[in-house]
Amino acid sequence: MSKYKQCIIVREDLKLSRGKLAVQVAHAAVTAYEDATTTAKYRWREEGQKKIVLRVPSLQDLFKLKRLAEEKKLPTALITDAGLTEIPPGTITALGIGPAPEEEIEKVTGNLKTL
Amino acid sequence: MSKYKQCIIVREDLKLSRGKLAVQVAHAAVTAYEDATTTAKYRWREEGQKKIVLRVPSLQDLFKLKRLAEEKKLPTALITDAGLTEIPPGTITALGIGPAPEEEIEKVTGNLKTL
Repeated sequence: MSKYKQCIIVREDLKLSRGKLAVQVAHAAVTAYEDATTTAKYRWREEGQKKIVLRVPSLQDLFKLKRLAEEKKLPTALITDAGLTEIPPGTITALGIGPAPEEEIEKVTGNLKTL
Repeated sequence: MSKYKQCIIVREDLKLSRGKLAVQVAHAAVTAYEDATTTAKYRWREEGQKKIVLRVPSLQDLFKLKRLAEEKKLPTALITDAGLTEIPPGTITALGIGPAPEEEIEKVTGNLKTL
């Protein structure tokens, strides 16, 4: 049986600090998790929450990945930062996809580089 | 009425890469979230998931904070890494506390430095 996985994709063009980046990734993880089915949530947690952080060059890439993931009915969460520090308010920083079966996620994120 | 908040505390002695750090923080965020009450989960999400990443010098500090948070009945999650890269398997990397009312969390984490 296929394993469950979650991918978080971040914009490398924003050049966020370690702390800021971690907050965006965590926000995407919780929000995409809430968008998943009860089965996916349960299976993924039981399996130890397999999670990977990937990167894209620009905002346009995030939008493209979100559309692809939605076409495949995967849970998604696009994260907008409140922008109190480092970046302007309303900046879109990250995209969470999953938890969902690994091979489904990889159809969307398979070519991306890890952070 | 008090706002809800979540704190993720990481060990600075491990010197994790950006990507590895973000995964640990996200793991702590999801797991502590699942340990919270339905009200806390709902309120915190509605308010935009206020989240902060803090740091401590050592593993002993994480244990101490976990004990303090549990005494105050706050949701907690201590994160152990599978250790496939960078650090030995079973290394404890992070502690999530909350979501819970901000002033309750700050009684435990108020003196810590941001990452």
